[in-house]
Amino acid sequence: MSKKNIQTLKGFRDFYPEDKAFQSWFYQNAKFVSELFGFQEYDGPILEPLELYAAKSGEELVQKQAFTFEDKGGRTVALRPEMTPTLAKMIAAKSGELKLPVRWFNYGSRFRYEQPQKGRGREFFQWDIDIVGSKSLLADAEVIAVAASFYKKIGFTPDEVIIKINDRELLNETFKKIGIPNSNINKMTKLIDKKDKIGNVEYEKGLKELGLNKSQTKKLQEFLKDKKGYLESQRLVGIFSMLEKYDLSKFVEYDPQIVRGLDYYTSTVFECWDTKGKLRALWGGGRYDNLVENVGSKKKIPGVGFAMGDMVLYELLKEIKKLPVSRKSPARALITVFSEKELSSSINTLNLLRNANIPAEIYLKSKDSLQKQLKYADKKGVSYAVIIGPEEIIK
Amino acid sequence: MSKKNIQTLKGFRDFYPEDKAFQSWFYQNAKFVSELFGFQEYDGPILEPLELYAAKSGEELVQKQAFTFEDKGGRTVALRPEMTPTLAKMIAAKSGELKLPVRWFNYGSRFRYEQPQKGRGREFFQWDIDIVGSKSLLADAEVIAVAASFYKKIGFTPDEVIIKINDRELLNETFKKIGIPNSNINKMTKLIDKKDKIGNVEYEKGLKELGLNKSQTKKLQEFLKDKKGYLESQRLVGIFSMLEKYDLSKFVEYDPQIVRGLDYYTSTVFECWDTKGKLRALWGGGRYDNLVENVGSKKKIPGVGFAMGDMVLYELLKEIKKLPVSRKSPARALITVFSEKELSSSINTLNLLRNANIPAEIYLKSKDSLQKQLKYADKKGVSYAVIIGPEEIIK
Repeated sequence: MSKKNIQTLKGFRDFYPEDKAFQSWFYQNAKFVSELFGFQEYDGPILEPLELYAAKSGEELVQKQAFTFEDKGGRTVALRPEMTPTLAKMIAAKSGELKLPVRWFNYGSRFRYEQPQKGRGREFFQWDIDIVGSKSLLADAEVIAVAASFYKKIGFTPDEVIIKINDRELLNETFKKIGIPNSNINKMTKLIDKKDKIGNVEYEKGLKELGLNKSQTKKLQEFLKDKKGYLESQRLVGIFSMLEKYDLSKFVEYDPQIVRGLDYYTSTVFECWDTKGKLRALWGGGRYDNLVENVGSKKKIPGVGFAMGDMVLYELLKEIKKLPVSRKSPARALITVFSEKELSSSINTLNLLRNANIPAEIYLKSKDSLQKQLKYADKKGVSYAVIIGPEEIIK
Repeated sequence: MSKKNIQTLKGFRDFYPEDKAFQSWFYQNAKFVSELFGFQEYDGPILEPLELYAAKSGEELVQKQAFTFEDKGGRTVALRPEMTPTLAKMIAAKSGELKLPVRWFNYGSRFRYEQPQKGRGREFFQWDIDIVGSKSLLADAEVIAVAASFYKKIGFTPDEVIIKINDRELLNETFKKIGIPNSNINKMTKLIDKKDKIGNVEYEKGLKELGLNKSQTKKLQEFLKDKKGYLESQRLVGIFSMLEKYDLSKFVEYDPQIVRGLDYYTSTVFECWDTKGKLRALWGGGRYDNLVENVGSKKKIPGVGFAMGDMVLYELLKEIKKLPVSRKSPARALITVFSEKELSSSINTLNLLRNANIPAEIYLKSKDSLQKQLKYADKKGVSYAVIIGPEEIIK
């Protein structure tokens, strides 16, 4: 058979133990904080019918970024680009049995057919946090508090990350006040969402295309600059007041420009950024009060949540020099083997350690010199070597 | 928008918290035992180029069972049906840098387009254990010992599970001795593998088709019945002797009929069964000394490992009534809310508990009666309720 070096697909990652250690660190911390807040872990299929996303995720995600294909049974399926539709589907399917509200979390892979770049790949991991079945502002505050508490746990400060909060309803109200017709509100929202990305020239061109006159443009600019604008939103006033009680005010701020790309958000939206603005958005979330109904529930079940990805988190940790240090082998001890004859004694010692729950490994080649065996322990980062030779056995 | 109940795809599973709890239990125990044996966790893409499996996994797996499709870049890709080829690819790509042997483990989802049935789905989870870079029999023994130790950890006895071990080289030698031509050895191996599945009539028909005469058939039957046949294999004698030193003899036995379906196994093969024979094979594994070379390594790097799936394990635990008991909410306490006015005090108490690492949740609707709030705690399995009312605050 001819040898051929088979390559990993573009945008996909192999996780060697040192890479996987970062994933485990993220997962363990996310799980710890989730459970501290009373969230239960759930999971769903990696493959879903495409129509699940077509329901409400938004055109860009479904048409351009989803990995879709036809399976052998002729169904159009997609590798899940995000978790919220699966969550909504699960809640809708058991809405009669579940004791609402539920607090659920998930950690798993998501897929998007995007151009790979720093902090963005085609397969990535996300930690999802959701409270479903409550329209209370306290649910919004709890979800945001989970994220801020996670940052506290991993040693981040408000100097490093900031969660920007907005209310789509406030935005819509403002559009109406300015006199933007209802039919243009969706396009207007998308334009605001892209403002920083496309730059001023494109943005102003967009405003003109939507028919805004000078006075309207001025009013919009004033609104987008007004740091106290949130006072017009009972929702935001309530959430900020609660987050103050959580002692998390320093981690959050009002930002009228936060919109989020997903179509299903109905009111509260939030997005997290590194304060230096060196990276793209770290994660986002919001309230989706119609999604569960849209995927099949007979009654309206509101929800709120966020999804935090692994790749930008990694970039930020690297940037601010707070990457966790990972150990090499989990083994605390290497048992050396002197020769075939002494193998029994080596295995006995190995069993003793493992029975005492001390991670240990045995050197696999009895013919190698002791020096070579110790060098192996060193390379693998195993701190102790238990040397078993004929003299040790006699003793 | 019209409501439509969107269904989970056939053979795929939604994991509600009680289902996910079983997955976590499996993963945590697998991880614990893996690390006790010095194995490091790794991971790889869920999507791989199809040619990775075409290299050696075997026709049935690649042609019939793989979820394959063409991606937007025109590449033929597959949802990984198993992990070993990804592992081999990763080792091959870094064979110069890695300190061999490596002990690696993975827990993750795999995909096969099969007819869903008890213990078999289209997306399932597997725990993979591999030692790569050692041809020592001790590596085979270690890998088998990991599985047996896992069973001990979760409370299984040798009365419930048995690991059957064989050596493909011994099988090949025997075929040669009987006079089966080299060109038929592959077909002969596959026939033995299917013996119990297809029944005696089909099996004997298969033997005739392969041209075996009466005397040859008799010799083959004798070999397949001989419980001491392993004495002809130095490999098996060595492995069984080591497993005796591990004090695991009761968990293992020689079975000349064990072959395994995957093409890449070269010598040692093993398969685990429930002793009552009520379920299909629980898991399998073996030695693959050419696979790493076949996916691109310049030198030959031997490996040995197993893959244990979640679905049959679940069926067996149910069968022998050893399913783990899972808790409902991770929260130990529910903080009640008397009214909007007392919310500050409730959040203060909530913070206190969480800051002390005690999982807690807060009731989200301040207008609900205390009775309703306590009923919620009960339904969610939260043991304690912290009642915060105006009198408690004064105190």
